[in-house]
Amino acid sequence: TRNIELAVVAGDGIGTEVVEQGLTVLEAALAGSDIAVATTDFDLGARRWHATGETLTDETLDAIKGHDAILLGAIGDPTVPSGVLERGLLLKLRFALDHYVNLRPNKLYQGVTSPLANPGDVDFVVVREGTEGPYVGNGGSIRTGTPHEVATEVSLNTAFGVERVVRYAFAQAARRERKHLTLVHKHNVLVNAGHLWRRTVEAVNAEFPEVTTDYLHVDAATIFLVTNPSRFDVIVTDNLFGDIITDEAAAITGGMGLAGSANINPDGAFPSMFEPIHGSAPDIAGQGKADPTATVLSVSMMLDHLGLTEQAVRVERAVAADLAERGGAVRTTAQVGVDLAARVRG
Amino acid sequence: TRNIELAVVAGDGIGTEVVEQGLTVLEAALAGSDIAVATTDFDLGARRWHATGETLTDETLDAIKGHDAILLGAIGDPTVPSGVLERGLLLKLRFALDHYVNLRPNKLYQGVTSPLANPGDVDFVVVREGTEGPYVGNGGSIRTGTPHEVATEVSLNTAFGVERVVRYAFAQAARRERKHLTLVHKHNVLVNAGHLWRRTVEAVNAEFPEVTTDYLHVDAATIFLVTNPSRFDVIVTDNLFGDIITDEAAAITGGMGLAGSANINPDGAFPSMFEPIHGSAPDIAGQGKADPTATVLSVSMMLDHLGLTEQAVRVERAVAADLAERGGAVRTTAQVGVDLAARVRG
Ligand SMILES: CC(C)[C@H](C(=O)O)[C@@H](O)C(=O)O
Ligand SMILES: CC(C)[C@H](C(=O)O)[C@@H](O)C(=O)O
Repeated sequence: TRNIELAVVAGDGIGTEVVEQGLTVLEAALAGSDIAVATTDFDLGARRWHATGETLTDETLDAIKGHDAILLGAIGDPTVPSGVLERGLLLKLRFALDHYVNLRPNKLYQGVTSPLANPGDVDFVVVREGTEGPYVGNGGSIRTGTPHEVATEVSLNTAFGVERVVRYAFAQAARRERKHLTLVHKHNVLVNAGHLWRRTVEAVNAEFPEVTTDYLHVDAATIFLVTNPSRFDVIVTDNLFGDIITDEAAAITGGMGLAGSANINPDGAFPSMFEPIHGSAPDIAGQGKADPTATVLSVSMMLDHLGLTEQAVRVERAVAADLAERGGAVRTTAQVGVDLAARVRG
Repeated sequence: TRNIELAVVAGDGIGTEVVEQGLTVLEAALAGSDIAVATTDFDLGARRWHATGETLTDETLDAIKGHDAILLGAIGDPTVPSGVLERGLLLKLRFALDHYVNLRPNKLYQGVTSPLANPGDVDFVVVREGTEGPYVGNGGSIRTGTPHEVATEVSLNTAFGVERVVRYAFAQAARRERKHLTLVHKHNVLVNAGHLWRRTVEAVNAEFPEVTTDYLHVDAATIFLVTNPSRFDVIVTDNLFGDIITDEAAAITGGMGLAGSANINPDGAFPSMFEPIHGSAPDIAGQGKADPTATVLSVSMMLDHLGLTEQAVRVERAVAADLAERGGAVRTTAQVGVDLAARVRG
């Protein structure tokens, strides 16, 4: 028997609802196998912060580190000052666990309607850098709250950090049919960071001569996502640009309810973390309205990451089959989870 | 007779082609009036740089400052290292002339088809800050080109700079029917800059109690531009986020061929600058394929800025009428200009 120790951070809002269904489907995927999953719930997020003032203590972080993987729902709540949970919990996990690859696939499944493309025509993956760029929390302000306030945000970019994520993206592209990599940045304005990214892509390309590359400024990328989303195969980009274009991409390929993601530490030094890219959606929380599909797709990515490829494929196929037959039917969060689990069991 | 001194920076690629038509329409708009336009051509951009190594000298900048307005085509060419012309010419103009308001309207005109909305349903304006944020050119790199390179980009934001553009955006909103202002930023991650923007919007709102406001993270804004573009009335945002979302918005409301813009110095200390938001499009340059409509709409914004409201309206109406009857007809750049000029003359 193989034992998988899974840390579960359901978090805020719809996070708890979608994670519950993610776990239901995970159980179905492993039923009858000799793989057992032991989950540890970590009560983190708004409730914990209100009760204790804690976001993520060193002890909790250490406990999480002892696990094989993390399933995360959503972090953030309007009752908590903006940034406290995002910086103190979600980004702290991504940074402390060196999740330098934030993998965000975009596939337009059969049965999913998009005004901008036909099912089957869109299938790309964004490799978003996860530990650098404008997300490093390196900024501050002086004379705060006065007419003389100056506030800064510093984007930090290193050859070490850019190269490892670019190499990962090339490896992804090399494994795909079209073998194409698009760098998205803004090197005509952010000349320092941008040219580091550009030089790195050129250099690493030598290791992957079979991969073709091109470059788009981030503003142009937002246009092509609308006018020609099928042009993309693998996109590699920085932390902030990746945040922006993956939301737009999700809107174009079926909405936030379908977009899963993986925060990966490819070195295996720390557990990787799997989460839907949507937020805690306080407006619909607690109503059983959230679509758990994005979380279930994240579970599929987790299985794949853990080497359980067959189970990963089974989960993704269940989602694809469900989407193909979904039509306009309205189901509760739990019902979608139950239906997907049934399909996974087969 | 009133004399308008107009500086013309046609620039690179399709810039020269679209500016020529913009001037044709401008002439038509002023024909028979007692307003005369004297244009001065400034040969700036790739050709000048190749010939002399200059982007924008102090003398040229001073000469431009002596004009009432600037009409700009497009800057940038693949034969020039990325950033040289953008930073050394286009952004230098915006910064040196204190164009702190970068106004970018988005209207879905009758006759223009969009997969995402119906004509008449989309009519919003983005007020993009133009002199701060990540565009300040405040970054650098050490150990450049080595495995130990570190590259930074610093976003600078001041209460002075944010407040003046936010006040301008509120004033715009107050004049519009819906009187709604949306702040777009990322204050859950970029907490220093973001909270300065948020506090400023709250404070200035007191001067415009009739304007309602809301807030969107930039990633969420890219979603709503796809799923519900008609929700927007006035958007105020920083320099980089404004760059990104206005390209996406243009893609959604008819494409880059229709998106005009104004770089405004509302204090009147320096001439304001009017330009299509599209780039130099080297792939189609010199072929008479570029749509000059975005430049013509920029000319309309220029007329409005110069107090020639009636003429501004006449030009915009000509564009609207042309779009309504355009259908799938293919015309050259020059033909569109001639047709628009004829409509303006009436
Ligand atoms: C909640 C927020 C900090 C986060 C991010 O900006 O990375 C989210 O938008 C995401 O994309 O996962
Ligand atoms: C050419 C480039 C420097 C410019 C910008 O980033 O502002 C352009 O994209 C724009 O939007 O006007």
